[in-house]
Amino acid sequence: MRYLGALILINLLSGCAKEEPIQIDEDTVRDPQQLFEWKLVTSWPKNFPGLGTAPENFARLVERMSAGRLKIKVFGAGQLVPAFEVFDAVSQGITEMGHGASYYWTGKAEETVFFTGVPFGLNAQEINGWLHYGGGLELWRELYEPFNLVPFAGGNTGVQMAGWFNREINSMEDIKGLKMRIPGLGGEVITRAGGTSVTMPGNELYTSMQTGVIDATEWVGPYNDLALGFHQVAKYYYYPGWHEPGSMLEFIVNSDAFEILPDDLKAIVEVATRAVNQDMLDEYTAKNNQALAELIREHGVKLRKLPEPVLSEFRKLSKQVLMEISTRNDLSKRIAESVQNFKEDAMTYHLISEEAYYQARRASSD
Amino acid sequence: MRYLGALILINLLSGCAKEEPIQIDEDTVRDPQQLFEWKLVTSWPKNFPGLGTAPENFARLVERMSAGRLKIKVFGAGQLVPAFEVFDAVSQGITEMGHGASYYWTGKAEETVFFTGVPFGLNAQEINGWLHYGGGLELWRELYEPFNLVPFAGGNTGVQMAGWFNREINSMEDIKGLKMRIPGLGGEVITRAGGTSVTMPGNELYTSMQTGVIDATEWVGPYNDLALGFHQVAKYYYYPGWHEPGSMLEFIVNSDAFEILPDDLKAIVEVATRAVNQDMLDEYTAKNNQALAELIREHGVKLRKLPEPVLSEFRKLSKQVLMEISTRNDLSKRIAESVQNFKEDAMTYHLISEEAYYQARRASSD
Repeated sequence: MRYLGALILINLLSGCAKEEPIQIDEDTVRDPQQLFEWKLVTSWPKNFPGLGTAPENFARLVERMSAGRLKIKVFGAGQLVPAFEVFDAVSQGITEMGHGASYYWTGKAEETVFFTGVPFGLNAQEINGWLHYGGGLELWRELYEPFNLVPFAGGNTGVQMAGWFNREINSMEDIKGLKMRIPGLGGEVITRAGGTSVTMPGNELYTSMQTGVIDATEWVGPYNDLALGFHQVAKYYYYPGWHEPGSMLEFIVNSDAFEILPDDLKAIVEVATRAVNQDMLDEYTAKNNQALAELIREHGVKLRKLPEPVLSEFRKLSKQVLMEISTRNDLSKRIAESVQNFKEDAMTYHLISEEAYYQARRASSD
Repeated sequence: MRYLGALILINLLSGCAKEEPIQIDEDTVRDPQQLFEWKLVTSWPKNFPGLGTAPENFARLVERMSAGRLKIKVFGAGQLVPAFEVFDAVSQGITEMGHGASYYWTGKAEETVFFTGVPFGLNAQEINGWLHYGGGLELWRELYEPFNLVPFAGGNTGVQMAGWFNREINSMEDIKGLKMRIPGLGGEVITRAGGTSVTMPGNELYTSMQTGVIDATEWVGPYNDLALGFHQVAKYYYYPGWHEPGSMLEFIVNSDAFEILPDDLKAIVEVATRAVNQDMLDEYTAKNNQALAELIREHGVKLRKLPEPVLSEFRKLSKQVLMEISTRNDLSKRIAESVQNFKEDAMTYHLISEEAYYQARRASSD
């Protein structure tokens, strides 16, 4: 190893320059026209709408922008590694990249949950603001650094639905004994409310609902839920999603693989993640309503709203759960404080902007 | 001129391939390492927060991703051309690129207004969905093609504020005789309500308010409005913004300049616009509330909500105005239908997702 000088890593989008000296092995000083071939493993079925097509779009953008110098081959869940081993595979350098959701890795570090989203937390617009202008991304990088991973925002589903249920939810009594697939802190809330929460990949949910292994499942929203056919195995479709208000997906890159890229390819990878991050939300925004209409009109799905007393109890339990996870260690405390401060600001402003506008637009007085 | 074969322009993000044969002059078949130097003119003061820093960020991203092969120099309003001559300058090839807002160019074609946004129309999340997955971008390109321009989404401010007023708005009587700076169809609504609307660039607004040339002005929202100092020259700050619910900014590229770029630089320009488009909204989302708090606490700004009867009358007038503009010609009809259909879908779904979530999150029952 020899010190090659201070490479300036420019945080391009914020316009702030940070000087970070990097140790680079001489082997890594390469021909700028060198070709790279990467593998990208995902937690989703190959080409699954939105979740699975986003990494394919990412790979296509990178290849085109780099004029073929960085080719990325995308693998669906189970093709190279199982859905829930994406983190380990990229961390260990088995593949260079992954696409998944940070809250699948709470077994590695509980705080990962904050970067997908928490119950009654930030919606899509807000979590993007927090990550890119509220200090969130820096905290995410600090959390992933010991795992040899560089995280990037990797798409957002928007507010998710509360999920599919084979019993009506009229009161908290109906949560007791409920077996529900629900990852992240939402699962902990369901457990504290007397239910049982499980985490399993999307491709196992249909059969699990069909065979009664679970009584309920959340997945994403109409566009994705229609694709998995939940209307065939569940009676009721509940809203609003309280547990995942703006689920942020993630791209993760093995740090060693990232560092040996020439600077232009580093920038191409980073900017392509930003473009795909926005693009996924655009797709969900455009397609959710048509899918919901199809579910209701063609498949007779019964759309239900969670009763306010149930939402209220979920809010209380969510506060407890968040409070506990927020005091585990210094990093979890800093992350929780950062996201909580951002949320209070965002709620105050969105009350007179986004929410006030939704009301003003649909007011039925005329 | 000679025909070089069908270059495949791939609409990368949607994954759809469209074959478009392009006539290329032999002079344009160049060394792939050729350097390009572009000028980008804007409608904003140089480096103005958000609006003005976005094109600077864009230029930095492009230069880094292209390893310096495409350098873009950014000019503030008036440095090279005035704020409202950006469209003409890029159309005529005086500069290769511009950054502004499409509704400044209604003198060229009235339908440009749809691509910034219309009263009671799409918010930021929705207009992104419409442009990129609802057919909006294709219509925008069709509209700009005769002007020799390629448009791209170029950032979003989120829901804007209703604006700064030197009189209280208690009823429609207070709109009569009001001289207000308000561009786009919002201005037409104010005129029909008995006021007078004017359009002028941001850098003229402070003085115009101070000298009484105008009684009211909208600009953007707290983050930008604080920077222009409107609290020093206006008494009341009104919400919600009804006239610009998710103002989309635009990057425009001269078609000839774009076509001679090698394919990787074309992709780099396109993907950088997508990243910056998201990034600007992130910045506003993170900074609006702090600015609003400063306006209220430190500058004693009086925050007011527009009365429902006034909003209701604005809705009625907006429908009239939209109806008229929607029937002018075939293209305006197709654009209006496309955006209206998208809006109906988005409203239906956002009632049970984004809006229902805002309510569920802040419910005060606990």
